[in-house]
Formats: sequence, structure tokens, C-alpha cells
Amino acid sequence: MVSVISLMTDFGSKDQYVGVMKSVILARNPAASIVDITHEIDPQNVNQAKFLTKCSYNYFPNKSVHIIVVDPDVGTNREIIILETPEAFFIAPDNGVLSEVVRPYVDIGYDYSESFVNPDGLCKLYALDKEQYWNQPVSNTFHGRDIFAPVGALLANGQKPKQFGRLIKTMMYDPLPLPIMGKNLIEGEIIYVDYFGNLISNVESKYISKDRDLKIILQGIVIENIGNTFNQSKTNGEFVALIGSHNHLEIGIYKGNAAKTAKIGEGAKITVQYS
Amino acid sequence: MVSVISLMTDFGSKDQYVGVMKSVILARNPAASIVDITHEIDPQNVNQAKFLTKCSYNYFPNKSVHIIVVDPDVGTNREIIILETPEAFFIAPDNGVLSEVVRPYVDIGYDYSESFVNPDGLCKLYALDKEQYWNQPVSNTFHGRDIFAPVGALLANGQKPKQFGRLIKTMMYDPLPLPIMGKNLIEGEIIYVDYFGNLISNVESKYISKDRDLKIILQGIVIENIGNTFNQSKTNGEFVALIGSHNHLEIGIYKGNAAKTAKIGEGAKITVQYS
Amino acid sequence: MVSVISLMTDFGSKDQYVGVMKSVILARNPAASIVDITHEIDPQNVNQAKFLTKCSYNYFPNKSVHIIVVDPDVGTNREIIILETPEAFFIAPDNGVLSEVVRPYVDIGYDYSESFVNPDGLCKLYALDKEQYWNQPVSNTFHGRDIFAPVGALLANGQKPKQFGRLIKTMMYDPLPLPIMGKNLIEGEIIYVDYFGNLISNVESKYISKDRDLKIILQGIVIENIGNTFNQSKTNGEFVALIGSHNHLEIGIYKGNAAKTAKIGEGAKITVQYS
Repeated sequence: MVSVISLMTDFGSKDQYVGVMKSVILARNPAASIVDITHEIDPQNVNQAKFLTKCSYNYFPNKSVHIIVVDPDVGTNREIIILETPEAFFIAPDNGVLSEVVRPYVDIGYDYSESFVNPDGLCKLYALDKEQYWNQPVSNTFHGRDIFAPVGALLANGQKPKQFGRLIKTMMYDPLPLPIMGKNLIEGEIIYVDYFGNLISNVESKYISKDRDLKIILQGIVIENIGNTFNQSKTNGEFVALIGSHNHLEIGIYKGNAAKTAKIGEGAKITVQYS
Repeated sequence: MVSVISLMTDFGSKDQYVGVMKSVILARNPAASIVDITHEIDPQNVNQAKFLTKCSYNYFPNKSVHIIVVDPDVGTNREIIILETPEAFFIAPDNGVLSEVVRPYVDIGYDYSESFVNPDGLCKLYALDKEQYWNQPVSNTFHGRDIFAPVGALLANGQKPKQFGRLIKTMMYDPLPLPIMGKNLIEGEIIYVDYFGNLISNVESKYISKDRDLKIILQGIVIENIGNTFNQSKTNGEFVALIGSHNHLEIGIYKGNAAKTAKIGEGAKITVQYS
Repeated sequence: MVSVISLMTDFGSKDQYVGVMKSVILARNPAASIVDITHEIDPQNVNQAKFLTKCSYNYFPNKSVHIIVVDPDVGTNREIIILETPEAFFIAPDNGVLSEVVRPYVDIGYDYSESFVNPDGLCKLYALDKEQYWNQPVSNTFHGRDIFAPVGALLANGQKPKQFGRLIKTMMYDPLPLPIMGKNLIEGEIIYVDYFGNLISNVESKYISKDRDLKIILQGIVIENIGNTFNQSKTNGEFVALIGSHNHLEIGIYKGNAAKTAKIGEGAKITVQYS
């Protein structure tokens, strides 16, 4: 039986925290394959975790268990939820971090104003409350070890989510901003800067007309077309626009770091301007 | 059979060193589950390794094998030992790094003056000397690859520790400092700063009276009580004292870095002052 | 069946890239053991990857699959190759990154001038072109996910390399520089600086006369002999020369960082001067 568990946290790799979560998992599910997505989410940066979760879960075996611990309010009365979609199980704090993976199952169109949503019937949602499965005594500051890990271990072992909590209807919803679609332009935003300094926008390729001439404008930088590879221009320091492996428009520099060169970070505006 | 091996080193993650240790393990024990505790112990900082080992081994399956390579004197005549406790096997240089895990089995009370101790009958201690199990030729600078990893692999595979070395009586003992208990105060010390900048002290919760009013004093900082969660105060920059997931008193800042803000590191004095 | 896959990339650990490669592998080969060599190769630094690959593959179980993605020209018409040697399978871009592992199988003596070589009959070489095994749609910028990982997963599962590509004769060859052997000296070069700041040269121990007195000269630094361990001199800041665990002459400082102290990096000249 496939039993893959992914971990995404903001714990870093300096301390014992991630290793201890894995030990808790293996003590309950010795056959689990554990995959680190990353532990270098900027501390408490829920938005980064939304984007990376969206970019990763689809490549895992169906019904893998994805544990996301970016949880500034650990120890308060925020719930920990299991979201079951047709593709996967997600265990996360109910703080909006699952907004991007639940978005396809939320029937509120392109715009939204709710802070809480009710995913459609293809999904199920549970709030963890069966303390007998938790690591006891439960600490106030490390629910990753005491709640997320033991529940994830058993879920990946084939136990049913209802065993660990009560069915609930709604979850917090705070998706990443969508681009604003105009007649002759798209106004987007940089939503993630990766390790290479590539500036990844919220403009997915599906929003971009393939048959119109365009240019990309990012603060003072103008790029005349969308290319295919980083090395299309080998001129030093030249910015390149392309559709990245996540299908989002991104700006990079061949053998360079666009974010550092341009001093641009998450939140910056980017425009696709049609001729 | 459960066959979990944990690794803790100061090797960092830039080089091939950790991956090579894992390859040596898998070549001898293909079924081993290998868990990284951390490889970011500050170079040669044996004290950090003492604390993180103490915080992690208890969550692993019983009789897991914990390999600790923080070993400034690699290649000298220092011994490499196996410590078998009722909970686990530890493989480490005989440089005091196992002092915290052997402490419960050392019958010298709260104070101690010995540099070497004889763990009680619940433990066994071996010095590795059976070279036929080592990776040959043995290098002078990478015993992690050549001795720790191959022995750990076979130990996790169910072979007996006596196969790898001779029984010995004593091991080096240099535990972390204990707090000084006064009538109206506890004088402690910061023993570890974690990735979030939380300042973790040697004052375990068991030393603190639950029914007396108190305040915490850390250099110029005064904290009026011990709270439950980091977000109890959402005032920016306010220091919070709480009992961390390791049961030690720690000082942090909600969504902030206490160590950087206060410019305080390992070794700083901290006082619990009763009213 | 042994099914070990190693990964070496310049992807860092901040993003989802490495985790996604692992998910692609596990979806196709759930029993694979995946070992990270490193993901901290300096971006696009093919030379570092050459050295670390050379230092690591020999310790893995025979016929492990080593995936190396240091690939500045991803998305261009550079080939992705499988090199099968008697020891292992390597999957890498055809950019010279495998030069050190193929060197023993290249019959061109100590000097060479070719940019492409034809490995001898003990090796086989394939260019990947069977797209039915790739993750579709194939992106232009993340062949690690879309080509390297799925092919590596199946190769480690026992499928034959010819299934994934056509036999080819030659591969790009750009090995690390060899030292220049003089009558009374060896002129070498620093080829790698490790996490500890040890300066690792291209002077392998086999090139050094064991029975002649010598000194080591590295820019202004003169070291009078080759020692055995870092702690042979406990004088602070004193440079030590020794043969590292990879059998290369290296310069370090006991409990210190030689590269930072001496402000020396990759490419610096080093001389072994016989008396």
C-alpha cells in the first residue's frame, strides 16, 4: 500500500523539530515514506506555504498525506483540520494555508468575499479532536510533534479521517490574489521568490493570450516577449520572462538572481501589456 | 523489524558527507529508515548536540540507533562508544556528548565532580574496536563514514553491540549545567538558541513552583509570568516566557526573534525570581 | 532488490523542487530509497558537482542510480544521458558533469585535448528520447521533475537503460584540472571548499612521494609537513595539511575555517615543494 507523507514547515533544519516529527511518524507507521517539501518557509509566512502546497501535491501518489505546519497561532483555539480532496489528504491549521488546494472545489467564481468557505461534495473536512491519538502530554508550542505527526502517520496507514475528528462544514479561505484582467493588459503580482531569485507571479499561463503581441513590465524593467528557457539570452544581467514549471509567468536572469539584481520581492506589481 | 537510524552531525548540508554516510548504511542495511535530526550543529559544538539528543531520542521507536558525530578530535585516540540504554542505542565519540542521555542512569545525585562515570546496570557500554566491520581503508578525518555508519547499520539490523567492541566501564561525563536552586530564586542559564531565536534555558518545568508568583529576569528584560503560547501577547517585540515542548523554560517573541532582538546567546544567565 | 537513488542538484532547499522530484520517483517506484547527496551546489557550478559525484558514488550499493541536475542549459537541445559504468547508473545533462566518474574508462592518458570522449567497452551511454516515460507535459525549466526523476525511478526499479533512450558513442568531457608534476614540485589547484572551510586540492595522495621531505605552499602560507588529523596542532589559527577522506591533499584549521581565514577559494594555486 502506498503510504507517502509529505512535510512542509517553517521549522528550519537547525533544530531537532523535523527529525522528531519523523520519529513520531515512524513509531506509528514504520513503512511510511516521508518526503520533505521544505522546512524553509519564512517563519509564519502562510502565503508561501499556500503556493508551494499548490505546486507540489499533484505529483505525489494519489491519497498521499500532506502535513503543513506553518502555524503562528499554535496553542490557541484555532482548529487543526484534515481536508480530504479526490487527490490527497491535507493536515494543516485552519488558517487559510489550504486555500489554493481547495480553490478548485469552492464554488464562488473568480471573485470572492467570504473568509470561510464550504468545499463542495467532492471534499470532506474534519476538525481534529480525538485526543487519544495524540502524543501525550500535548505541548502548547509543538503540535507538529504532538498532533499533526501522529494523526498523519495513522492516516497514511489507511485509517479513516473520521476516526481523528468531527466532520465540519467550513474552513478559513484566504487565497492568493488573482490577477486583474483588463482588455489590453493583465495586472498581476509577484507571489513567490524562489531560491534562484526567480520572481514568480500570479499570472498563470491560462490567463495570457497566445496570439497577441505583448510585453512584460515589472517596475522599471520591460521585457519584450515570453521566452522558453533561461538561456535564451546569454547577455549578462538581462531579464527573461517565461512560463515556469508551475505554469506561472516568472521573471529570471540566466545564471543570475533576478530578485537581488532588481531588488524586487513578494508583493511587487507586474503587468502584461498587449500591443 | 523496526530499523530506524537517526543522524546528528555538524557536517552541514553543502557537501557529500551526510549522503555518503547514508549510502554506507544502505549498502549494509537496505531496509533501514534513516532520519536526520540535524546536520547544523555549530561546528564542534558538543553542548548543542547534548541538548538536541536529549530532546529527540524519546520519540523514536524503542531500540532505535542514534548516531552522533560531533567529533572535534576525530583521528586521535579518543574512543568511539556504543551506549545501550533501555530506550536506545547511541553511537558517539567518547567526548561527553552523551552526558544528557546517560544522566538518568548515573548515580551521583544533583552535584557531580567526576569527569568519567560508570552508568548503572540498566546500561551497557562498549568501545568500538572490531575493525572488520569498518569501511576500509579507514580515513583519519571521516569516521562518520568509515566507523559510525557501518556499525550503526548492522546494529539497526539486529546484530549485538558486543560484536563491534569490548565492554567498558566508564564514559566521559560533562553534562549541561543545572540551575542553582535558591529559596526565592532559581539561577539558570541559556543553553540553546533555536532557529526561531527562542532562548531555551536549563530551568526545567519540574524545578519551578507552580503555586508561587514569580517573574523572569534575563539581562535587562523582565517578564511578569510564564504563559502558554507565543501569541499570548501580540504586542510587537514583547518578550514571552513559556515552557517549551522540551519542558524547559524558554523566552521568545511572537512572530519575532528573541535572540537577535535582545542580542543574547547561549551562556547568558536567566533568573526565576519568586515574589 | 536494492533500489537506491541519489540526488545531487543546485536547487537549494527553500522551494518545493527537490520534494517534487522525490514525489515523482515514489509515484513510479514506491520502494525506492532516496538519498540526498546535496542540493547546495552553487547555482550552475558544474565543477563542484563533478567533484562531489566522484567522492560519493563508490559508497553506494552497486548499480545504484545517481541523478545529477546541475543544468544551466535546461530546455535547450543539450542531451540528457544515462552513463552506465560497472559500478552505477548516472543520469545527468551532457555538459561534462560526469567527467570525473567516466575518467577511469577514458583511454586518453594523463593529458587530453578532446571535448568529447568515447568511454570504453565497460561503459554504455544513452541519450534519453523515449518521451512516453516522461512526466507530461514536459516543462522547459524543470527537467529534474519531468525527465530525470521518472527515468531514474524506473531504472532503479530494474528496467533497462535502452528502454529510455538510444545508444550513443560520445559524451562531453571536461574533467577537473590535474596537477602539474615537476621533478621537485607538484603544482596543484584548490578545486573544492567544503562546509568547514577546508581547502581541497586536486593533488591526490597517489601523486605525492611518501619518502621525500616536503612543504606545502598556498599563497603566503607555508606548511612544513602533511599531518594526520586536524587536531595535530591545537594552536589557534594554525593551518594544517592532510590527506582528506577523499584522498586529496587539503588544508584546514583545527576548529577553524581555513577558507575564510586565508580568504582563499576555488581556483587558488597550491604547491607541494620537495626539499
